[in-house]
Amino acid sequence: MKILVINPNTSESVSTLIQAEAQRSASPGTEIEVATAPFGVAYIETRFEALVGAYASACVAAERHGTYDGVVIAAFGDPGLHGIKELIDVPVVGLTESSLMTAATLGQRFSIIAISPRIKAWYRETVERAHLASRLASIRALEEPLRDIGSVQQDYAARLKALCNEVVDDDGADVIIIAGAPLAGLAREIRNELPVPVVDGVSSAITQLEGLIRLAPKKATRGSFAQPPVKPNQGLPEPLERLLSSGKTG
Amino acid sequence: MKILVINPNTSESVSTLIQAEAQRSASPGTEIEVATAPFGVAYIETRFEALVGAYASACVAAERHGTYDGVVIAAFGDPGLHGIKELIDVPVVGLTESSLMTAATLGQRFSIIAISPRIKAWYRETVERAHLASRLASIRALEEPLRDIGSVQQDYAARLKALCNEVVDDDGADVIIIAGAPLAGLAREIRNELPVPVVDGVSSAITQLEGLIRLAPKKATRGSFAQPPVKPNQGLPEPLERLLSSGKTG
Amino acid sequence: MKILVINPNTSESVSTLIQAEAQRSASPGTEIEVATAPFGVAYIETRFEALVGAYASACVAAERHGTYDGVVIAAFGDPGLHGIKELIDVPVVGLTESSLMTAATLGQRFSIIAISPRIKAWYRETVERAHLASRLASIRALEEPLRDIGSVQQDYAARLKALCNEVVDDDGADVIIIAGAPLAGLAREIRNELPVPVVDGVSSAITQLEGLIRLAPKKATRGSFAQPPVKPNQGLPEPLERLLSSGKTG
Amino acid sequence: MKILVINPNTSESVSTLIQAEAQRSASPGTEIEVATAPFGVAYIETRFEALVGAYASACVAAERHGTYDGVVIAAFGDPGLHGIKELIDVPVVGLTESSLMTAATLGQRFSIIAISPRIKAWYRETVERAHLASRLASIRALEEPLRDIGSVQQDYAARLKALCNEVVDDDGADVIIIAGAPLAGLAREIRNELPVPVVDGVSSAITQLEGLIRLAPKKATRGSFAQPPVKPNQGLPEPLERLLSSGKTG
Amino acid sequence: MKILVINPNTSESVSTLIQAEAQRSASPGTEIEVATAPFGVAYIETRFEALVGAYASACVAAERHGTYDGVVIAAFGDPGLHGIKELIDVPVVGLTESSLMTAATLGQRFSIIAISPRIKAWYRETVERAHLASRLASIRALEEPLRDIGSVQQDYAARLKALCNEVVDDDGADVIIIAGAPLAGLAREIRNELPVPVVDGVSSAITQLEGLIRLAPKKATRGSFAQPPVKPNQGLPEPLERLLSSGKTG
Amino acid sequence: MKILVINPNTSESVSTLIQAEAQRSASPGTEIEVATAPFGVAYIETRFEALVGAYASACVAAERHGTYDGVVIAAFGDPGLHGIKELIDVPVVGLTESSLMTAATLGQRFSIIAISPRIKAWYRETVERAHLASRLASIRALEEPLRDIGSVQQDYAARLKALCNEVVDDDGADVIIIAGAPLAGLAREIRNELPVPVVDGVSSAITQLEGLIRLAPKKATRGSFAQPPVKPNQGLPEPLERLLSSGKTG
Repeated sequence: MKILVINPNTSESVSTLIQAEAQRSASPGTEIEVATAPFGVAYIETRFEALVGAYASACVAAERHGTYDGVVIAAFGDPGLHGIKELIDVPVVGLTESSLMTAATLGQRFSIIAISPRIKAWYRETVERAHLASRLASIRALEEPLRDIGSVQQDYAARLKALCNEVVDDDGADVIIIAGAPLAGLAREIRNELPVPVVDGVSSAITQLEGLIRLAPKKATRGSFAQPPVKPNQGLPEPLERLLSSGKTG
Repeated sequence: MKILVINPNTSESVSTLIQAEAQRSASPGTEIEVATAPFGVAYIETRFEALVGAYASACVAAERHGTYDGVVIAAFGDPGLHGIKELIDVPVVGLTESSLMTAATLGQRFSIIAISPRIKAWYRETVERAHLASRLASIRALEEPLRDIGSVQQDYAARLKALCNEVVDDDGADVIIIAGAPLAGLAREIRNELPVPVVDGVSSAITQLEGLIRLAPKKATRGSFAQPPVKPNQGLPEPLERLLSSGKTG
Repeated sequence: MKILVINPNTSESVSTLIQAEAQRSASPGTEIEVATAPFGVAYIETRFEALVGAYASACVAAERHGTYDGVVIAAFGDPGLHGIKELIDVPVVGLTESSLMTAATLGQRFSIIAISPRIKAWYRETVERAHLASRLASIRALEEPLRDIGSVQQDYAARLKALCNEVVDDDGADVIIIAGAPLAGLAREIRNELPVPVVDGVSSAITQLEGLIRLAPKKATRGSFAQPPVKPNQGLPEPLERLLSSGKTG
Repeated sequence: MKILVINPNTSESVSTLIQAEAQRSASPGTEIEVATAPFGVAYIETRFEALVGAYASACVAAERHGTYDGVVIAAFGDPGLHGIKELIDVPVVGLTESSLMTAATLGQRFSIIAISPRIKAWYRETVERAHLASRLASIRALEEPLRDIGSVQQDYAARLKALCNEVVDDDGADVIIIAGAPLAGLAREIRNELPVPVVDGVSSAITQLEGLIRLAPKKATRGSFAQPPVKPNQGLPEPLERLLSSGKTG
Repeated sequence: MKILVINPNTSESVSTLIQAEAQRSASPGTEIEVATAPFGVAYIETRFEALVGAYASACVAAERHGTYDGVVIAAFGDPGLHGIKELIDVPVVGLTESSLMTAATLGQRFSIIAISPRIKAWYRETVERAHLASRLASIRALEEPLRDIGSVQQDYAARLKALCNEVVDDDGADVIIIAGAPLAGLAREIRNELPVPVVDGVSSAITQLEGLIRLAPKKATRGSFAQPPVKPNQGLPEPLERLLSSGKTG
Repeated sequence: MKILVINPNTSESVSTLIQAEAQRSASPGTEIEVATAPFGVAYIETRFEALVGAYASACVAAERHGTYDGVVIAAFGDPGLHGIKELIDVPVVGLTESSLMTAATLGQRFSIIAISPRIKAWYRETVERAHLASRLASIRALEEPLRDIGSVQQDYAARLKALCNEVVDDDGADVIIIAGAPLAGLAREIRNELPVPVVDGVSSAITQLEGLIRLAPKKATRGSFAQPPVKPNQGLPEPLERLLSSGKTG
């Protein structure tokens, strides 16, 4: 089984974190390939940045189409996730979606720990898109500007752990989601020091995607997740153009 | 890895269906044990019957505690699921919860196909408890009284397939959930004849539970899924009494 | 008119509190009988404990069936309430449901005062089941471990009153619900010292049940509150078995 | 105990229907006085008509203040209900609010049977104001223009019964609310011919109001149901002016 | 184009504030006429006061019918807005509705700044009626009793600005709505000192109403915003009576 | 005042329709410039196509930045709208958002008429993003494959009018939104033949944008609609890169 993990951020340092946690989470026999967005911003925090990351991720997914059994969109906030699900004929998951699903089976209410105040609106709207906002106990975030996106975990370890305790004690969270690719792997480090289960986006996504690939769901040929109807298009990268013209929709 | 699958219905014929689909879905190396509820009704369709099945399932989970790495409550409607999650220190999943999570990653709106009109209210309330009612396109059910709970799939194959098509065409479902232990395995049979992905409770539950066991979430010691506080109790079966007195809550 | 009040907790001291407030609230001519759960825990705070209390309450309701005109499930959180409504052919009410309905006619937003932090999740979910969470201003609870479940009112009088004022001033509650059988009767004691109406579960339940009995609603013979369909069952206490087999459903 | 029942419609024939059902529902010792709105329209179906009925009802409630222990606003849609609750220091209930509360204790989902298509929007918004729209299975209404508002029950008996059956069979209602003062008493006539409990606004209101009066809730002195703050006013009927100036708010 | 602005409060000083901001906001060629409620209270803060203001506003709108191209109900809380929309055959807008629509196009979440704690419940319910409560970040209000309704802006300038900053920093508001006719024009004064867009009810209403008048929507002849059906009425002011009898509904 | 109207579809024929209706709707003195997406698909119907249109629209908005006072994203579904609002320092509106706001001031519930079944999911999710799904009466669509995107209005005139009547009579819509750039201007043609107000996306957007530009809201410097924080980016078109680096966020 081969999984393509797309980092919609352009930071190679974040890709390295993602790669490491993906590898640790994968079953024996699962091959992981991480691809970094060829264009966009270093780390996505806003709707506009996500809009760019969505298109970049779609381009990557199209370009490598045929070489993988499933795709992870590896930014919390899931840029382009639903659109890419339409386009691609194998399972596609995102870090937020996977984290929410894992958290939802471990408890009733969950909180999200994030790396910046600005990122909170985008995360909340992603939870709303999943219709799970009423199970969201809170989103808490680091307040200071980040020194280095590649070393957030080390630089703010104590503060991140404090936030985790606050969401349990003050906000009533049953489960903690540590959000964002730059925090990939942190949950694994600190989970034994925390009073409730801790969910990591990358390991949730890899685990759930492996499960989905084994379940082998059929690609929709009707309904809103079938491939977009074949129609005139222009100015698109060739791999996108080819997928859109493949006409698999029934 | 060993998984205990509890059938909250008392029908052995349903246990057989569950066992077969669980076995087909399990990874190599996963051991499946199916236990049938020692008391209750042949197949649960109502809130009252679920109340009995919840207690029966809790008794079974407590009795075999220590012999498994995870538990599946194998009736759609998930009798007792959240309570049993408090009690038990390894992951516990239910057919509805697992199906909803699988469906939610395969599309935005889903419909449920059920075996009787009476069962619809209980299913809807289970979806509401997951706060996913606004993503539920519809619940459609067989209308006739069932001939035999063990042969529903054979007896109503054509009607069930027709219902599946109706929820896609008329209700806007992106994903179909074929609900209820008596229908375990049907999705596997007919999925290639249907225009959207089809979710089966048993295979979703086994797959997700395997994933959760691999993720190894910590048992909560605070929050609402920690073990119930130690306090006086009476009249309980010894295994329940012992678990409640084990005092693991921090 | 005879009302059976079932205490799903096993504490006789709590039954005594319930009995006293029920008696004070009942109209002349109403006979009150309080039955304590024969098995379960001293006081229910969690979903698991409620699951046990639900089954215990159902057993009591079935055992005494034919001797009463209505039933009160006398634990806030209403263990088993909806299931027992299916089973029984006379009105059945619960402390939470009755309190919510009384509160909803006295104001638009209400808060709940509870005896322990752990109990808050179970209460919130009970309010959600009534679809009234958007009118819930807050749930506030005593923070300390209780000295004695039978003397909570005396031991924490000042703190409970302070919580009542906080929900009005800080949370915007129009009405205060003092929740939980161990606090039965407290509302009556302190209501003149508080700035908004105060609702007590036991007196609300008795009053509303008397009203329902006078309105004499027909037992449903269709829909989701009809008796469960007659079908094979096993291992149930004889009174439950007999009710399930009575076949009154049309 | 004396109850003032205000008919916000100007039709005396409707007042007669209300009076009859109120009398049938009242406990021995309850005195019922019905007052017809001195201005407004014959029967309220729209938001504008309700706006007029609200002011008319407030004028009546103020004028007779001091002569009653509780008030019923006797039009489904509850014109002015929440405002009048602020003004008056004894319990005030409405037909919709009471019906919803009764229905909510008899089942989980309910439907409303109404006398005209136009009235449906106003009813739905009243249910929304109670935050219970997600428990509303449907509103179904007579389609034809009414011959005579005082004889709707006789003129459309068969059609009304048919609508009742439709909401159970097609919409999944557990409970039927027969709405509107012109249908007062119909539920009592036909309830034995219907498969689920049937709720009547007038009898629900009388019964619940009697209960509330016995519970003797304190008039709020803080929060949003305290009396409006004393401030300059002008051009108001003297009884309104006097109540507004009484300054009871703490 | 001529716009009638109805001040549902009886304070002429508030009408003066409204008039000034309406004039500043109007396009060249728009004529503004402000009418003060002939009866009611000095400034509306509660549901009861709004009930009176609704009727007073309806009377004014009816009396001047034929002399205007559109109406503004110029109290935040929009007393009588939906009813008056039924009655009148040209566009009618309210301060809250207009502010919400403007805010909803400037950001995703908004907060409301209000002049008194008591007014918050009425405002929240107005937002709920628009079904936008889930986009409401918070309502914050001046806490002290007002010295003079005509000089609130001057008397509490610093505190109002502080509240504006709090809703951005603490509540996550993207947009600030400065609510209530007594604050008309304040947004214009302080908007350059605040970090997010600030919405004023009067200027939003005038601007949107001008746009609606230009779009020239047809008056509904079916559905719930058609004129109320012609039917017997009594005791109404002659202009209301005439409009209700004009029988334009199809 | 100069308005840039971006057609996220690549069809020039649709741009022509948009241009015509925009011109008809604009005030004297408003200059309209329509720009067609340089890449993407002929007409957007799905999430994936919207993802591409979002990026294309952002590129156009950035490229022409400095030449306009406001932007219309002229596809129903508003591709990229919220992201582009972050990026751009003048008001940006979309067809759906504008239509919803106009509809919301003309009635309480609205329906959407659309050009294809496939497009319905994308529209519903756009309404959900505005949190207005509970006011959406229905979405109805043409069922047949379109002959020519530029002549939909002519080809399906009768069917579109029939759909408009159905949403009023069967779904309870107070207002009809005729959705999608290919239908631009149709509302103007048929509004006098329909029983409720009809909303057109293009004219709503132009009218509201003119109003917003006159209100002159400040660009946010804090909160989630401030410009994205300055940070490393790569591979972006120069105009996007320049805007992202302009560092206006406070």
